[in-house]
Amino acid sequence: MSVTDELLANNVAYVESFTGPLPLPPARHVAVVACMDARLNVYAILGLAEGDAHVIRNAGGVITADELRSLTISQRLLGTEEIILIHHTDCGMLTFDDDGFKADIAADTGLKPGWASEAFTDVETDVRQSIGRIKADPFIVHKDRVRGFVFDVATGKLNEVV
Amino acid sequence: MSVTDELLANNVAYVESFTGPLPLPPARHVAVVACMDARLNVYAILGLAEGDAHVIRNAGGVITADELRSLTISQRLLGTEEIILIHHTDCGMLTFDDDGFKADIAADTGLKPGWASEAFTDVETDVRQSIGRIKADPFIVHKDRVRGFVFDVATGKLNEVV
Repeated sequence: MSVTDELLANNVAYVESFTGPLPLPPARHVAVVACMDARLNVYAILGLAEGDAHVIRNAGGVITADELRSLTISQRLLGTEEIILIHHTDCGMLTFDDDGFKADIAADTGLKPGWASEAFTDVETDVRQSIGRIKADPFIVHKDRVRGFVFDVATGKLNEVV
Repeated sequence: MSVTDELLANNVAYVESFTGPLPLPPARHVAVVACMDARLNVYAILGLAEGDAHVIRNAGGVITADELRSLTISQRLLGTEEIILIHHTDCGMLTFDDDGFKADIAADTGLKPGWASEAFTDVETDVRQSIGRIKADPFIVHKDRVRGFVFDVATGKLNEVV
C-alpha cells in the first residue's frame, strides 16, 4: 500500500465528521503565502478554520509569477485584502545555491532548468524580498496590510520581520 | 485590529502546545499540490501530522513552472517520491476566463498580465492536465506514483480522477 492509499483512508474519517459546505470567498479576507515545509501546518499555526483564508505555498514561501497570479485572483475575484507571508527557520532553501543545484540537474538530465531555484542565504532578507515583489506588482490591489514572518520550527512561534 | 493581528493572537496558543522541532525532510515522503481555496484544510483532509508532507498550493492547484520548481526541490533535495494533486468542486477558477479577466485588469491598470490565469472549465480535465504537465517535466524524478483527486466541498470526500 502506498502512502497515498494510507492518507486516503484518513479521508474517510474526515468525511464522517465533515460539516460543509461553506462559501467560496475566504471569510477572513486574508491570503497566506507560506513555505511548503512539512512542519508548517498553517491552519494550526494561525488558528484558521476551514473557509477562513486562502493558503498559497511553495518551496521557500517565495513570491514568483505564480504567487502574483494567485494573489491577484485572490484579491480581485475573491475579496481578500490582507497578505501574511511565512518563511521559517531551518529551511531547505538555505542548504543549496542556484548554480550548484542546476549544475547537478544538468549533469543528471542533460538539461538546465529554465526557472530560478529561489534558494536564499538569509531567511529574513528573503521575507523582505517577497514583500518587495508584492509591493512592486501592478496587479495586486491591496498592499497596505502585507506583513512577513519567520516561523520558528523549534518553538512554533511566528516572529515578525520588520 | 487587523485580521492578521487576530491570527497572531491565535499563534500564542499554538506555541503553548507546541512539541517541536521535527526533522526537515517530510516523514511520509509525499508532496501534495492543492488549490489555495480556504475550505481545503489539507492536513485535516488527509490526516497529515506536522512533518509528514510537503504542501504546495496556488489558485486552482494547477501545475505551472513554480510548482515544477517546488516538486523538483521536494524530490531531488528532500526525498519525496509520491505526488497527490487536489482540485475541488465549486472552484473559483471555473467562474471566469483568461481573456475576460485580463481585459478587466488591463482596463483597470493599463497593463495586461504576462501570466496565464490558468482558469479552467472542467475540474477533472484540469486535474489530468496537471498530471500531464508533471509527466512531461524533465526534472521531476519520481512519476510512477502521481495521483489526482477532486475534493468535494459539500461532503469532504476526495474522489480520484482516473
